[in-house]
Amino acid sequence: MVCNKLIPPEETACPGEPVVGGVLAASGFKASGVAAGFRAATPDRLDTALVCCDGDASAAGVFTRNRFCAAPVVVDRERLANGHARAIILNSGVANAATGEPGIANARQTGDDLAKALGCDADDVLVASTGVIGVPLPMDVMERGIRLSVAALGDDAAHDEAAATAIMTTDTVSKRCAVRYEDAEAGVTYTVGGMCKGAGMIAPNMATMLAVITTDAPVAPAALQACLARAAQGSFNHVIVDGDTSTNDTCVALASGAAGGAEISEATPGRLAAFGRALAWVCDGLARKIAADGEGATRLVRVCVMGAATDEDARVASRTVASSPLVKTAIAGHDANWGRIAAALGRSGASFDQETVAIDIAGIPVLRAGLPIPFDEDEALRRFEEPQVDIVCDLGSGTSSYVTWTCDLTHGYIDINADYRS
Amino acid sequence: MVCNKLIPPEETACPGEPVVGGVLAASGFKASGVAAGFRAATPDRLDTALVCCDGDASAAGVFTRNRFCAAPVVVDRERLANGHARAIILNSGVANAATGEPGIANARQTGDDLAKALGCDADDVLVASTGVIGVPLPMDVMERGIRLSVAALGDDAAHDEAAATAIMTTDTVSKRCAVRYEDAEAGVTYTVGGMCKGAGMIAPNMATMLAVITTDAPVAPAALQACLARAAQGSFNHVIVDGDTSTNDTCVALASGAAGGAEISEATPGRLAAFGRALAWVCDGLARKIAADGEGATRLVRVCVMGAATDEDARVASRTVASSPLVKTAIAGHDANWGRIAAALGRSGASFDQETVAIDIAGIPVLRAGLPIPFDEDEALRRFEEPQVDIVCDLGSGTSSYVTWTCDLTHGYIDINADYRS
Repeated sequence: MVCNKLIPPEETACPGEPVVGGVLAASGFKASGVAAGFRAATPDRLDTALVCCDGDASAAGVFTRNRFCAAPVVVDRERLANGHARAIILNSGVANAATGEPGIANARQTGDDLAKALGCDADDVLVASTGVIGVPLPMDVMERGIRLSVAALGDDAAHDEAAATAIMTTDTVSKRCAVRYEDAEAGVTYTVGGMCKGAGMIAPNMATMLAVITTDAPVAPAALQACLARAAQGSFNHVIVDGDTSTNDTCVALASGAAGGAEISEATPGRLAAFGRALAWVCDGLARKIAADGEGATRLVRVCVMGAATDEDARVASRTVASSPLVKTAIAGHDANWGRIAAALGRSGASFDQETVAIDIAGIPVLRAGLPIPFDEDEALRRFEEPQVDIVCDLGSGTSSYVTWTCDLTHGYIDINADYRS
Repeated sequence: MVCNKLIPPEETACPGEPVVGGVLAASGFKASGVAAGFRAATPDRLDTALVCCDGDASAAGVFTRNRFCAAPVVVDRERLANGHARAIILNSGVANAATGEPGIANARQTGDDLAKALGCDADDVLVASTGVIGVPLPMDVMERGIRLSVAALGDDAAHDEAAATAIMTTDTVSKRCAVRYEDAEAGVTYTVGGMCKGAGMIAPNMATMLAVITTDAPVAPAALQACLARAAQGSFNHVIVDGDTSTNDTCVALASGAAGGAEISEATPGRLAAFGRALAWVCDGLARKIAADGEGATRLVRVCVMGAATDEDARVASRTVASSPLVKTAIAGHDANWGRIAAALGRSGASFDQETVAIDIAGIPVLRAGLPIPFDEDEALRRFEEPQVDIVCDLGSGTSSYVTWTCDLTHGYIDINADYRS
């Protein structure tokens, strides 16, 4: 019996040249990461990041849809209404969520204080928080954070890394991604880069935990918002660690225009599309880093469902497999357990006949026409040693496909979450 | 600040007198549990149960909605069309799921062989399987199972327990529940009892893993089907262990009529309602046992959402909290972590304002008007020592409520599922 490997739809190629760095990869920005003392037990740990544009920047944001949304999300939504921003300050350790009106007042005060320190309009300062829910933002600590982070601003690699490190909570690595691309029409080279954090309470819905993307391309606010919404939808919203959408999800993009050239907007569709591809590539890279660093994760898992009757069928089937505890523990156990994948597809609500389903695990065909086929278990074990495991399912019912990024479910997740008060 | 405990809606009182036993609590049945050898590594473990009515019984069933449904589910749906059955044989170790046409033929053959051994019509024999997916049902083992289980039939307590034990997989305890009630109108005492199994791949949708309910009440087939569908909806469908709906969920009810009296049907609404309450109470008791024995569970958890704007809001909010890995690991860690509960409510899709939400954990008020209130952490730790932990959430948006039964998420779940090939 000849069983060809399922060939999932191609991934988007890099639209330029990957570069090292995050929020300082693009020109026109400074950043810092400092220890203000939000965590009493580890006061020297970096916990406050500041990203600041040299001048005024176009700004856009997408946010959590959680009804228990945090105070900084409320404030940023207001302050992004004008399409511009100068800076964003992010703290880790305290989420400023479920803190009521006083929490919103604290978030506003943070922005106002930072605006004063930077000499800009209060409406042009954004705020973001991550950490323990239900604890008031300690304003004395925040004042110290503002003072230290403004004083520490710089534009080199160390500052880029410090900012990305300061927003980490249960993350085990800082997460940055950047790309440089040619705008052939304008004859200018632009850079898009960013940082993010996220490891648990991850099932973004229109945004992710915390992410800041910067670019030196001169993108108009409305166009930046549209590109960011599309990029977040196609990247962060494809990640599931545990299915728990956070209260604080925030993804902000700032465009300095420092690289020059005429404005990029809906009026320049070719240049806007090129920028959109670069932004999407950076968001996709950051999103995968979140899945790979999922709490307790040892493997990055890509779940591609193809051959679905509708886009929605592909989406729910892929997300159901990616969020199945039984599938995720099987991968932790290096078990090519297609039965659990089939059961997850079957309960997902997607429409298909079990007689037309095919499944590959780690490139090994394990199910064809709804029936198991023999495979080399030793070879499967070897492939589970790779850092990424691909699950590809063909429902044999149409042409729609969808990819979800997730990770395995291990003792590490239990260790982290049976202890951590978040 | 005086904070009264939230008072969730009252639970249904026992509609009669609880009695010890399962499928043999009611008269007119025999049962057995034998070791046929479905598990090569433990050939002496009980793995085949037979429940047999002395005469013809009314029969009803509800089944998984998983599209990858198992072969016995397909066959039982066919054979229940006539509303009658004589017996059901259940094996553990091999699920006979994802086995295609040969699997369906094997399920039919099992029923036919058992019918021959019992001297009844093939259409009156039901089959059920649970265990590893994708492995053909070994028919030589099944033949031995039929022979041994028919020879071993009996009606005492040991047989009742043996049948309940033979259907266990990762269950740590056998699960039985029974009640005796007075049908005042007919002047007859009836008994309803049952057994079930289930510990993982649990998020029943219109049925549960495997359950067999028997009664000596003379219930007409259509009325039995209606009562069973309602009872399963109100009990098994309120249980979530891991959110993975099984391929083999089967719940069958058999009514022998052995206790006498005129037929109970839609034409005797008062008597039918009394029977329905007894059946619902047994199903509820069995459902809680599944949640309490969830894989790796150390605590039974009751999640009641009240004050919701609609029934659907109450349902999705309750189920979202009950299936949240972060909430379940917090309970494993004895952490009264209302922030994770609030975040789960917020992402559930239910409509509410965070300013009106109240939460109690283990009877301790922890959130009022969307804001945390101080509580005694030592007292909370003490209450987490109890075998059951209640989470009560009032959305403050209406009058609908919904209860979901679940369990905590521990290292035990990972141990079981990173190893077990199911």
